[in-house]
Amino acid sequence: MSSNRPSLSAKLDGLRSSAIRDLLKLTSRAEIISLAGGLPDAALMPSARIAEAAAKALTDTAVLQYTESPGWAPLRAVLAERESARIGRAVALDEVFVTHGSQQALSLLAEVLLDPGALVVVEDPAYVGALQVFRAAGARLVTVPLDAEGMRVDVLRELLARGERPAVVHTVSNFHNPGGVTMSSHRRRELAELADAYGFWVIEDDPYGELWFDAAPPEPVAAHSRTVIRLSSASKIIAPTLRVGWMTAPESVCRAVELLKQGADLCGSALTQQIAAELLADDAWLTAHVDTVRATYRTRAEALVRAVRATFGDSLSCTDASGGMFVWASFTDGTDTSALLARALEEGVAYVPGAAFTVDSAYTHSMRMCFTTADAPVLERAVNRLARAHARARVVSGQSTQL
Amino acid sequence: MSSNRPSLSAKLDGLRSSAIRDLLKLTSRAEIISLAGGLPDAALMPSARIAEAAAKALTDTAVLQYTESPGWAPLRAVLAERESARIGRAVALDEVFVTHGSQQALSLLAEVLLDPGALVVVEDPAYVGALQVFRAAGARLVTVPLDAEGMRVDVLRELLARGERPAVVHTVSNFHNPGGVTMSSHRRRELAELADAYGFWVIEDDPYGELWFDAAPPEPVAAHSRTVIRLSSASKIIAPTLRVGWMTAPESVCRAVELLKQGADLCGSALTQQIAAELLADDAWLTAHVDTVRATYRTRAEALVRAVRATFGDSLSCTDASGGMFVWASFTDGTDTSALLARALEEGVAYVPGAAFTVDSAYTHSMRMCFTTADAPVLERAVNRLARAHARARVVSGQSTQL
Repeated sequence: MSSNRPSLSAKLDGLRSSAIRDLLKLTSRAEIISLAGGLPDAALMPSARIAEAAAKALTDTAVLQYTESPGWAPLRAVLAERESARIGRAVALDEVFVTHGSQQALSLLAEVLLDPGALVVVEDPAYVGALQVFRAAGARLVTVPLDAEGMRVDVLRELLARGERPAVVHTVSNFHNPGGVTMSSHRRRELAELADAYGFWVIEDDPYGELWFDAAPPEPVAAHSRTVIRLSSASKIIAPTLRVGWMTAPESVCRAVELLKQGADLCGSALTQQIAAELLADDAWLTAHVDTVRATYRTRAEALVRAVRATFGDSLSCTDASGGMFVWASFTDGTDTSALLARALEEGVAYVPGAAFTVDSAYTHSMRMCFTTADAPVLERAVNRLARAHARARVVSGQSTQL
Repeated sequence: MSSNRPSLSAKLDGLRSSAIRDLLKLTSRAEIISLAGGLPDAALMPSARIAEAAAKALTDTAVLQYTESPGWAPLRAVLAERESARIGRAVALDEVFVTHGSQQALSLLAEVLLDPGALVVVEDPAYVGALQVFRAAGARLVTVPLDAEGMRVDVLRELLARGERPAVVHTVSNFHNPGGVTMSSHRRRELAELADAYGFWVIEDDPYGELWFDAAPPEPVAAHSRTVIRLSSASKIIAPTLRVGWMTAPESVCRAVELLKQGADLCGSALTQQIAAELLADDAWLTAHVDTVRATYRTRAEALVRAVRATFGDSLSCTDASGGMFVWASFTDGTDTSALLARALEEGVAYVPGAAFTVDSAYTHSMRMCFTTADAPVLERAVNRLARAHARARVVSGQSTQL
């Protein structure tokens, strides 16, 4: 018999690496100032405090063993207390589930909540990590645009009135990635009312909510309905290396996610979960730490937005950075951001073209800029480089895109 | 509009918690000696060495950040070197992929290798964590029995001759969980030849291979064919808390798994991966450490098997424990191990009834006993308690089961 190489699943044909990940490989040259990443600043992360918590945890051999699939119980207790304060009602331990970053919560929820062909409503532009899991689950995606007040709930209402029946509506309610905007309080209430009325799940994906600059964002959507599943994470406020995300959801959802978690990877790391519990429980320290991160990001965000406005004037409209990690900017002079990128890289600056976040819209003239990992003077230099690239650009199309 | 609670996916109807996990909740009472678990002994794990490696890793803030989806490159380099030595050919960096324990490798591979309805051949009795992911992927399962030389490759050959065309054949080649047996060298070669001839993937699931007592197991199945995907783990030789498993596979498989890993959880923990790299690279220390684990488990295994044989004689046939963590024992006097369990718990001993590992066979009279977490005198007491439960048992059926 001749040698016969086995094949891979046909399902993989539709899967591709995210455009952003491919881009990041191109932008890692030292001379490039990258606004393309989506990373928190490691220099601001509490390495000494983490080392101290690790050493303390490792004095007990229990931390070396497998832990429970829903997460180490004392961590869940700390999270239940935090979420109770946030949502404004007593969250039970069985309503909190620890995941390997909030991306794992999205991935397991897609399995738990969606049958193939189910309708999922996503925001446009969308968080690409959510698109990836919903597509992999065989969902049908329908988009609702963003404006300065976040998700256009009126458009969702029209979809529902036309008879569309989503299983899930996904929203990044605070400091949207990539859109930069935050959903207003009255839209949160409306979205929750629609969820209750029509019987769909809302996934309120909230990794950035604590990174506010002037004022905390409005109460979560989850404060208004029990059919909201809230996701959050220690990655942006402590460190991604902990791989600690969490989900606050009805107990039935947590139990279903638990069954899938056992097959997916059995359980998380008792070590990193104990470190997270130690740091999240220390309110005084955590408040001071997050204040520092917030103040630093605020200075950087303001420097970036100021430089963009001073340099480009009306030809590049840019979101106000009121928190989070990203600014979304759209050329009004017809500049194509995908075409501009090659010149920008030549000039030594990188960003993510709007096309990477496309669901229905093209975002030909838009881009996402991350302000977290460079200081103000570097960000100003980045904008200067972008201006040089823009001045050289001859690739101009006729239309402008609005967010 | 009335309130309308959204539902969960219909896919969940077929999912249930593993019988073993449910049993473990019953057996955690302090007075019960549990042979039901499947845990390595935390007291043997190198907590001081892990603490030292954690402190060292945390002096560099890079360890706090997200890491690459295929795993931290220096860890992959260490693993490539180890796997090269094991398999007997140069394994490239791009053929090594780090997963969140080897359970995650199984779970992602089920997505990568299987289309719904694909045929998967599993051993009977089977590792339940593998059954769970293959079932969730919609595979059709066909079983091949084990004997003292591991998988009955002649039965697989008959299946192939009858026209069955598996996409995947899964084997726990060394110190089988739950079967306790190791595949012989000539069967490994035969299995690899069949894989090449018929074009199916072999998943060689090998978490226990280093836990041999008298002699190392034969060369891996992967030494004989490139269509073998080898899984291994740091959980049994260092500590489960690291959540470091790895896969050695053709680059095309690693790239496909990478795409799915991004959606599943983005990446692993740079911290626990650096700890694993540090310890796995320290050959002299690791050899001495694993020797200690091996010697301790060997003493325990021998004590358990000796006590079983001395106490039950011919009425309970038991595998020779030559490595790993488990003994598989079958009553020859018709005792039903599921029925016996209630009495065993009353007497203060727990095990897992064979029914938990059932695919096609009933294993009514069999059970799995784990010898890793109790010292010899405690294991002897456990067997005495089992004997008291057995003496009281009146639930006797007519047949016996053989492994």
